[in-house]
Amino acid sequence: MKPVFTVDEKWCLYVNNMRSPPWFDKDEQHEPQTKAGLHPLEVMIKAKVAAMLEKKKLLGDGQADQGKFVLKTAKGTRDYGPKSMAVRESVLKIVTDAFKRHGAETIDTPVFELRDVLMGKYGEEGGKLVYDLQDQGGELLSLRYDLTVPFARYLAMNKISNIKRYHIAKVYRRDQPVMTRGRYREFYQCDFDIAGQYDLMIPEAECLKIVDEVLSKLEIGEFYVKLNHRYILEGMFAACGAGSDQFKTVCSSIDKLDKQPWNEVEEELIKEKGLSKDNTEKLGRFVRLREFNPSMGNVELLDKLMEFEELARNERFKKGIEELKVLVNYCTLFGVRSIRFDPSLARGLDYYTGAIYEAVVPKALEGVNLEANGEEQKGLPVGVGSVAAGGRYDELVGNFIGPTGPKGKEKRQDVPCVGVSFGIERLFAIMEAKMQIEQMQVRTTETQVFIASAQKNLLQERMKLCGQLWDEGFKVEMAYKANPKLLTQLQYCEDRLIPLVLIVGERELQEGVVKLRNVKTREEQDVPLTELVSTIRSVLALI
Amino acid sequence: MKPVFTVDEKWCLYVNNMRSPPWFDKDEQHEPQTKAGLHPLEVMIKAKVAAMLEKKKLLGDGQADQGKFVLKTAKGTRDYGPKSMAVRESVLKIVTDAFKRHGAETIDTPVFELRDVLMGKYGEEGGKLVYDLQDQGGELLSLRYDLTVPFARYLAMNKISNIKRYHIAKVYRRDQPVMTRGRYREFYQCDFDIAGQYDLMIPEAECLKIVDEVLSKLEIGEFYVKLNHRYILEGMFAACGAGSDQFKTVCSSIDKLDKQPWNEVEEELIKEKGLSKDNTEKLGRFVRLREFNPSMGNVELLDKLMEFEELARNERFKKGIEELKVLVNYCTLFGVRSIRFDPSLARGLDYYTGAIYEAVVPKALEGVNLEANGEEQKGLPVGVGSVAAGGRYDELVGNFIGPTGPKGKEKRQDVPCVGVSFGIERLFAIMEAKMQIEQMQVRTTETQVFIASAQKNLLQERMKLCGQLWDEGFKVEMAYKANPKLLTQLQYCEDRLIPLVLIVGERELQEGVVKLRNVKTREEQDVPLTELVSTIRSVLALI
Repeated sequence: MKPVFTVDEKWCLYVNNMRSPPWFDKDEQHEPQTKAGLHPLEVMIKAKVAAMLEKKKLLGDGQADQGKFVLKTAKGTRDYGPKSMAVRESVLKIVTDAFKRHGAETIDTPVFELRDVLMGKYGEEGGKLVYDLQDQGGELLSLRYDLTVPFARYLAMNKISNIKRYHIAKVYRRDQPVMTRGRYREFYQCDFDIAGQYDLMIPEAECLKIVDEVLSKLEIGEFYVKLNHRYILEGMFAACGAGSDQFKTVCSSIDKLDKQPWNEVEEELIKEKGLSKDNTEKLGRFVRLREFNPSMGNVELLDKLMEFEELARNERFKKGIEELKVLVNYCTLFGVRSIRFDPSLARGLDYYTGAIYEAVVPKALEGVNLEANGEEQKGLPVGVGSVAAGGRYDELVGNFIGPTGPKGKEKRQDVPCVGVSFGIERLFAIMEAKMQIEQMQVRTTETQVFIASAQKNLLQERMKLCGQLWDEGFKVEMAYKANPKLLTQLQYCEDRLIPLVLIVGERELQEGVVKLRNVKTREEQDVPLTELVSTIRSVLALI
Repeated sequence: MKPVFTVDEKWCLYVNNMRSPPWFDKDEQHEPQTKAGLHPLEVMIKAKVAAMLEKKKLLGDGQADQGKFVLKTAKGTRDYGPKSMAVRESVLKIVTDAFKRHGAETIDTPVFELRDVLMGKYGEEGGKLVYDLQDQGGELLSLRYDLTVPFARYLAMNKISNIKRYHIAKVYRRDQPVMTRGRYREFYQCDFDIAGQYDLMIPEAECLKIVDEVLSKLEIGEFYVKLNHRYILEGMFAACGAGSDQFKTVCSSIDKLDKQPWNEVEEELIKEKGLSKDNTEKLGRFVRLREFNPSMGNVELLDKLMEFEELARNERFKKGIEELKVLVNYCTLFGVRSIRFDPSLARGLDYYTGAIYEAVVPKALEGVNLEANGEEQKGLPVGVGSVAAGGRYDELVGNFIGPTGPKGKEKRQDVPCVGVSFGIERLFAIMEAKMQIEQMQVRTTETQVFIASAQKNLLQERMKLCGQLWDEGFKVEMAYKANPKLLTQLQYCEDRLIPLVLIVGERELQEGVVKLRNVKTREEQDVPLTELVSTIRSVLALI
């Protein structure tokens, strides 16, 4: 018989020893109810002990200097300083402009959702990475993991059956961060989705056009968009003895092919997923088709896959092939040349029902010194992974609505959706690296005119001028000192790339003029106060 | 002797009865350790029972239909649909433009901070409203409560001693929401702050100029900015027998004066804060000075307060009065006419050290039907509270850095700061109400051209044209149907206020032209395909 502790004794034992109890497991506290063999109470205590240990750690050993603690941001997150923000805003502008060019509206949803809304949407792996909020006596909440599930919840809740919307916001994943490659626990997603009952592959083609436009305009070098279809994946797996119950688990192995060599994936399929050696070899021939035929076009590859008889007799598989052929044609009409059918593309999320795609920038970060972070040694590839991804998900919204209609005749209410999400944080990382390599200068403000004084006691005159120019809509700054030095003021303008300086002097004021100086050319001219606004406007127009 | 339950028995008792245990207290679970008289274990169970009750509630009574749950957003939060977003973006643009006009850079910080960073910064009341993240085996984190503390943390962590920055982001407070007035648990803040050692009141004046510019441009009606100074508050309190240890608690009473009549505040000061009746009466004469002298200007009121001898002999009080006189003068120079010195302004936050201010729109929401929500009956005022607020906080950053220097000669490293924060959610509420009253039409997309077809089988031609126009930078849409009806397409353009339609027809294509239709005037012209781009550009320029 097991020795019986009262919970009090257990509690004291572990708290006093300040070490983890034997059943303490750092990363598995999200689903206490499902943890087999543990009394619910034990699970609870576990969480609290961990919290106390963490707190003690943060406070440091000496409780005396409580005011001092490590100044840092949470693990996997970062601050954006003015320069990073300038880069980020330039990237976001390109993305937003593309979304607007395609007639999208925008929406926003709260950063947290009821926990039940997110539960069961992100597969086994994803579910573990959701941030939960502490139960503070209200609803059970979690931070959003992506923007797609909140979008589906929004559609279902508001009974919206068609919309073309974009949503740019941060999402949260308790993943292992790799900050130098733009992999964070808090990161932006930029989603574009089309919901509605429309004709085959037209919305998909528009999503791919947007990916093509954004990545071209960012000028981050060569990129392409891998393309596949859920039906094609299902057909290939079925032909290799992996039925629908094994779909997710085989997908998760195949999904690793962009990071791992085939023989490792093969081993996993045989040893962990229970596929036979023959079937695994066959699957390899299917999913590595592009690898074996590098010079083939998309339609040729699709046709080639249809040559395998065991695939061709599967009606769903055939439908997948035909749908992708339509999509390839539409992409050509839209002028999209970056797509590559790739039967090894198997995105991890559960909710895709049709075409799927993923954009990669294979040579991103090439030439950037990553060795400093010791990352190359760890065997990480040079790329940043996918920078955009998406696909069709026809059933997600319907899952929220549930079947409706008169009793006994309930029907699913599906809202078909397709979309694409940009991994904008990775694009920032690429852009920041690019700017570092090219030593580009970044302006962090938009100031047009600086109001300086040549002598002391001119604060009131500067303030009056400032007020007037602000009211005229100019972007203006002045020093926050009563008597700043002229040289300091001019230096500030040069550092900040401010184009114009207005120099206020006693003599000039008596004559009713101010000096206007071009910072770059250092040319100066006296401008009558009465003509100041029009002169600045015309000078700025020429710069 | 108390009966001793094993924890298991207690657990079963309450879980089986599905009711709150006697020590269950819905809103006091944030600091279990400090809860006197409770075994830590009881506190833990409490939290879990609440969570389960909440879950059960969400799932509804019948556990059978698990897929169905209440589709809603978390309490106190909302989705923004396309129309709300359009309003929100127009408000944010006015605010952002003002910040940029004043030469500010922008930064961003993570949505959550280490809990220790936020602890003790928001006073007794505020601290209770912080959202904590669940301990999932890592750091202890909380959602940011404002943008000021993260800003101070950012400055201290990066050793930045001067910056002028703005930050627009969402913050989180577990407050009682009043959604119709724009009081949410998740809401935007738009902060502008100036950090650095500068001359007296110049940065303060710029903050007030920005408030004046933003509220003027929003055209939401009459507004004014209340102004006070921490030294003036301290001086008035001290003259009434309330020393520095009572500063915060007396502030919190005085702060209620904009919502409660004086006699209620008076009662609170006497009964709860322990002030004598004489002293409370005296304090009333001070803080209600503007009320008693409604026609007086700011400088007159400041002088009038100095006429009280018990105040005038307090050096710090005198300094406060003198500083505000400087600020009033600077505001005049900048053209700010909306400020009102108000000795009853006593903002709740702990960290202010100098001038403080708060902007109000007294007649906001006038004419909006709030009775429908039963709010008027509850005695809520018609206003929305403050729409912008801020002040000087010279010690917050130094508190993060702590004293530095050689042992025995440690010195504080202060970074003086002053700033202003816009309650943008309240401004959205005012703007939405205004648009509702004025029945303004809102465009939610920027689409310029819609490509329609007059007959069947023209999908390919439409797609080609679409692709070309997107590549030229036009904002273009087309129907996602292979064979849409012309009338449906034209109707869509009218509904969406899209200015131009390009109608593709067989005859026209044979002749190498398309029809360009002005949606508003319904005028049509044939345009040769070779001149399409230039024609659209010139037509759009005229609309």
